[in-house]
Amino acid sequence: MYFSSDNWAGAHPRIAESLSRHAEGFAAAYGTSALDRRMEQKFNDIFEREVAVFFVGTGTAANSLSLAAVNRPGGVAFCHRGAHMFVDECGAPELFTHGSRLVPVDGALGKLDPVHLRQEIDRFPPDFVHAGRPIAVSVTQATEVGAVYTADELDTIAAICREHGLSLHMDGARFANALVHLGLSPAELTWKRGVDIMSFGATKNGCWCAVALVVFDPDRAADLPYIQKRAAHLFSKSRFISAQFEAYFKDDLWLRMAEAANARAQQLQAGLVASGKARLAWPADANEVFAILDRRHADAIRQKGAQFHDWVPPHDLQDTLGDDEVLVRFVTSFALTEDHVTTFLDLLG
Amino acid sequence: MYFSSDNWAGAHPRIAESLSRHAEGFAAAYGTSALDRRMEQKFNDIFEREVAVFFVGTGTAANSLSLAAVNRPGGVAFCHRGAHMFVDECGAPELFTHGSRLVPVDGALGKLDPVHLRQEIDRFPPDFVHAGRPIAVSVTQATEVGAVYTADELDTIAAICREHGLSLHMDGARFANALVHLGLSPAELTWKRGVDIMSFGATKNGCWCAVALVVFDPDRAADLPYIQKRAAHLFSKSRFISAQFEAYFKDDLWLRMAEAANARAQQLQAGLVASGKARLAWPADANEVFAILDRRHADAIRQKGAQFHDWVPPHDLQDTLGDDEVLVRFVTSFALTEDHVTTFLDLLG
Amino acid sequence: MYFSSDNWAGAHPRIAESLSRHAEGFAAAYGTSALDRRMEQKFNDIFEREVAVFFVGTGTAANSLSLAAVNRPGGVAFCHRGAHMFVDECGAPELFTHGSRLVPVDGALGKLDPVHLRQEIDRFPPDFVHAGRPIAVSVTQATEVGAVYTADELDTIAAICREHGLSLHMDGARFANALVHLGLSPAELTWKRGVDIMSFGATKNGCWCAVALVVFDPDRAADLPYIQKRAAHLFSKSRFISAQFEAYFKDDLWLRMAEAANARAQQLQAGLVASGKARLAWPADANEVFAILDRRHADAIRQKGAQFHDWVPPHDLQDTLGDDEVLVRFVTSFALTEDHVTTFLDLLG
Amino acid sequence: MYFSSDNWAGAHPRIAESLSRHAEGFAAAYGTSALDRRMEQKFNDIFEREVAVFFVGTGTAANSLSLAAVNRPGGVAFCHRGAHMFVDECGAPELFTHGSRLVPVDGALGKLDPVHLRQEIDRFPPDFVHAGRPIAVSVTQATEVGAVYTADELDTIAAICREHGLSLHMDGARFANALVHLGLSPAELTWKRGVDIMSFGATKNGCWCAVALVVFDPDRAADLPYIQKRAAHLFSKSRFISAQFEAYFKDDLWLRMAEAANARAQQLQAGLVASGKARLAWPADANEVFAILDRRHADAIRQKGAQFHDWVPPHDLQDTLGDDEVLVRFVTSFALTEDHVTTFLDLLG
Repeated sequence: MYFSSDNWAGAHPRIAESLSRHAEGFAAAYGTSALDRRMEQKFNDIFEREVAVFFVGTGTAANSLSLAAVNRPGGVAFCHRGAHMFVDECGAPELFTHGSRLVPVDGALGKLDPVHLRQEIDRFPPDFVHAGRPIAVSVTQATEVGAVYTADELDTIAAICREHGLSLHMDGARFANALVHLGLSPAELTWKRGVDIMSFGATKNGCWCAVALVVFDPDRAADLPYIQKRAAHLFSKSRFISAQFEAYFKDDLWLRMAEAANARAQQLQAGLVASGKARLAWPADANEVFAILDRRHADAIRQKGAQFHDWVPPHDLQDTLGDDEVLVRFVTSFALTEDHVTTFLDLLG
Repeated sequence: MYFSSDNWAGAHPRIAESLSRHAEGFAAAYGTSALDRRMEQKFNDIFEREVAVFFVGTGTAANSLSLAAVNRPGGVAFCHRGAHMFVDECGAPELFTHGSRLVPVDGALGKLDPVHLRQEIDRFPPDFVHAGRPIAVSVTQATEVGAVYTADELDTIAAICREHGLSLHMDGARFANALVHLGLSPAELTWKRGVDIMSFGATKNGCWCAVALVVFDPDRAADLPYIQKRAAHLFSKSRFISAQFEAYFKDDLWLRMAEAANARAQQLQAGLVASGKARLAWPADANEVFAILDRRHADAIRQKGAQFHDWVPPHDLQDTLGDDEVLVRFVTSFALTEDHVTTFLDLLG
Repeated sequence: MYFSSDNWAGAHPRIAESLSRHAEGFAAAYGTSALDRRMEQKFNDIFEREVAVFFVGTGTAANSLSLAAVNRPGGVAFCHRGAHMFVDECGAPELFTHGSRLVPVDGALGKLDPVHLRQEIDRFPPDFVHAGRPIAVSVTQATEVGAVYTADELDTIAAICREHGLSLHMDGARFANALVHLGLSPAELTWKRGVDIMSFGATKNGCWCAVALVVFDPDRAADLPYIQKRAAHLFSKSRFISAQFEAYFKDDLWLRMAEAANARAQQLQAGLVASGKARLAWPADANEVFAILDRRHADAIRQKGAQFHDWVPPHDLQDTLGDDEVLVRFVTSFALTEDHVTTFLDLLG
Repeated sequence: MYFSSDNWAGAHPRIAESLSRHAEGFAAAYGTSALDRRMEQKFNDIFEREVAVFFVGTGTAANSLSLAAVNRPGGVAFCHRGAHMFVDECGAPELFTHGSRLVPVDGALGKLDPVHLRQEIDRFPPDFVHAGRPIAVSVTQATEVGAVYTADELDTIAAICREHGLSLHMDGARFANALVHLGLSPAELTWKRGVDIMSFGATKNGCWCAVALVVFDPDRAADLPYIQKRAAHLFSKSRFISAQFEAYFKDDLWLRMAEAANARAQQLQAGLVASGKARLAWPADANEVFAILDRRHADAIRQKGAQFHDWVPPHDLQDTLGDDEVLVRFVTSFALTEDHVTTFLDLLG
């Protein structure tokens, strides 16, 4: 009954099996092995175009190096107030961009509100060196609170980017969960929507440690090998990431794992509502369920072994919370079974 | 017959098996799981004292974050001219120390010459803000050219550090190979010699991706959790590194692998000399053999499948090289068998 | 009729005269001349204690280097949403602190609201490495909108800092204007209130280019010589700044200039109200007057030669502005005479 | 008798007078005043082409921001082992380039030896991410030891830069002294030789604080306004620098001051030789004389009031120095009169 985070799960057996299989023998290091090359080609296939791809070990690395890749001096990037890069990366974006700033933007469900985004961009007058200059926008797909941008919503953000000459980054730590929710192809959900660069996360979805920084126009990736190495994020035995991706993509394992995680979220959501012991804070699109519980009840089921985190309520929710109520987050993953959820719902009572 | 580098090897089967075993179930993320804690304790045991330990994914990360941890503004660090941090880290030490400089020091066999080290330190007059200020010395154990500092040699370097108030860092990318060569304990080769902080590498010695940054005085490690996270080097599913270390230390696997690699280097070295087709550039202490070959002969055996790199000759060797000769490097590892070496020697003729 | 900014003024004749006087002869460079030493002593006298003082050329340098001096990795600093360091320094604070973040805090009149400040600090759970850690608070005295923190208000902020172990920085770009408004001594308005480090600005108040970074506990300034030089902010002919300060402090010129500037603000404010052509946005404490005018009228008097900037209305003022109204800022300085103001008021009609 | 440094001089009376004259009245800030614009135009005239120019306060700033302007991630810049940026800037180049490295190159008289330069560049194999990539070369004109690159010598360096696609930077802290020595025009000594960007220093040659960063192809300067501001090197009352340049260029004051300084060096050099009490280390081209004296004699004349610095002997000079001898540096400037030199020579005996 571990709903704490999808990174509390380990790795899917087929990921582990692939690592064992590729453990033997010799292969060129630093991203130049035959397997590495095959996986680069695989990313071209997945995205139906030639892309430049760089394997790193953490989502924070992929996000920060992405921003560094599109940044210019004095650059300013816009992201949601609750975005991982804004609240959970301890200054890595600022460090790797050499002092550029993240500007938080409000919006329901973890999505950038286009009106607020425009307002924040408009605070930066053209050629006003003192304030810095807008350079990029980052969207998180799925968002930090389990919602998924629709294609239309992404089009709206991308149009604002084009209008202002800004690069569009997607933090795809839970990209697979968004993809299967919408039933779109990876291309349809990224560069066909105007995304320039993305953090393609696989760690939360069944890998040990596998994130790909994907640049959709390879011509814009010329500096990235140096940006990556200078940040100490180039692995010597790089095939240990490629081996994970090989299993990840084989027979659509990645989509199957994301579907399973999303299905568990739906099962949990339905059960929470049916229990009468919780209200949904908002509906789950992907693999995160946010619910409002009586605080004592939440504590009680934790004591019985359930693991989940409290969550700071967004501003507009605060007023609707009772004094004895608490907002909590449940995250599902490939590793969580139907039985796990059922057992939890039984506990909930 | 892969002598290109020890990072062309994959992972030892017991490392892979441990990853498979720990792939199941749920565990707290970001270095806080029970396994992570056990491995931290294991490092205390290995070093016979309480240490602070941080798991990262690359040697470059461990080196650069080590320097960042001991650095102060305007700081200058001294390392060998051929050290990895000086020639192979693309500015990561400068970036993570916020602009501090590495000063190269000469010395035979990749070891800092104490006289030269003093000379270089003495170029920095006290309180002369323009030049910056000495802050740290880094030694590489084993060195980049396969030699091993003796305990006495380390004592000499450490004495210079103490005299000038400098921190002593050890780049231990091949620490295990040095350890078994000398037959000393980890404590005897590090903090008992005056080492303050080290990069404890396991990747080259049979892991996929496992490096520990070890601080021998935990009180000096207070900033490191932030330095590590800010550099995007904190892994979410951190147990994937801990799982490697668990197998690495179990039944002294790490020492056995290092012994095997060193033994292959000795076998190779003896065979090279016996062949009459090569001269040793210098004797091998650890798992790297440097030899001088006829260039055409080197090409010929490469065409037959042998893999090894040319090496830029050190200054003092240049004059002894014939016009048709080339300096080459052979690296051995746990993955290289006696038969591999024999097959290669047969090729050599 | 130049009300655009106090940095549109040049230098007071006595400042220029001092520069001419000290232009002759030879003196040690880089802050070590006899004049430099006298000025350091003068700062001790002014603040009634031994301080460490560093002369730089811009307020942005003083602010950013101050933050760098008190920062630690992952550090987060809190300042007002309208603070110069937040809106007008193009990432310099982030660059010089190596990626630390500024968190904006709301509050009326450009002052940190203590309740909001606590709320923002409380968003950072202790030892939660992902979010970074609170390290400093910065107050601007006088604020960007011409208000002055009272001693009590500063005490409240300082108490919050002490409680959380945060350093307190004061951006004193208009410190003199605040000082003469309150009638307190420099000591009473700074370290006796709990200020640890300040940007002591003289440029806006009649100098060409003179800002002192003052550290009230000299023991905390050990790294600053290196921080300053590494940022390229150590002047060779440093006496050109010291010469400005010599004249600045002589016969209390600095206080006389600030009094004159504040008096012009009061004259202007009274005239604006009396004219019936403008409403005050809020009362002026120091040398800035914010008023609401009919937009066409503002344009008209600009066409007649008056110079002043529009100002983005704070959130709480927006609703009170008519469709045809505009918020404007008038800044006074030593260089503005009573006649200048009278002429302007005549224009205003 | 102050030969310590040209930055021990103050400012020429006409520089000071210009500051006094421009102290009155109001002018737009941050480099946008009419005077600022006139001075920008003046630089176009001086260099006989349209250039982009940025005024900063220190040579270290101009050098470091120049490197930042031409740098790319992983970049490496080559300069002389004795160059100011290598020995006297405390890491500022590394900080502002975000971790790029300076590689020292040997050469007589402070000039880059073309053979050594090629050797150092060739150490960086193309596309070898680990080592970083060559990006720029910096020459110092006049050099740190008083020599001047001829036009031919610069052509040779520039050809190497073109061949490898490197930007060529000139540290012109003593540019005027080199110019009048050679009798060339500013254009002939810079962009016509292949220089892309330069630090045009005026501080050492009679100004208080005036350095211009000049980009010869303005299209390459698009990021510099942000690079400058982000480094806190944009002055508010920018006209205080422009006012210095106005006087500096008027009636060729700058050339007259440089001629005077160089003439004093020649006078001093001749006197030293004639005295029989000193040997020249090498002949002076510009305004620095290096001589070898008996140590006790050097001390004796210092006690009588002469001021000059010891200098660390270059490698090739060390063997020629007697045990009782010392290498010393004498720097002349506009502020040093013929009588000063005569008085000194009388002391010398």
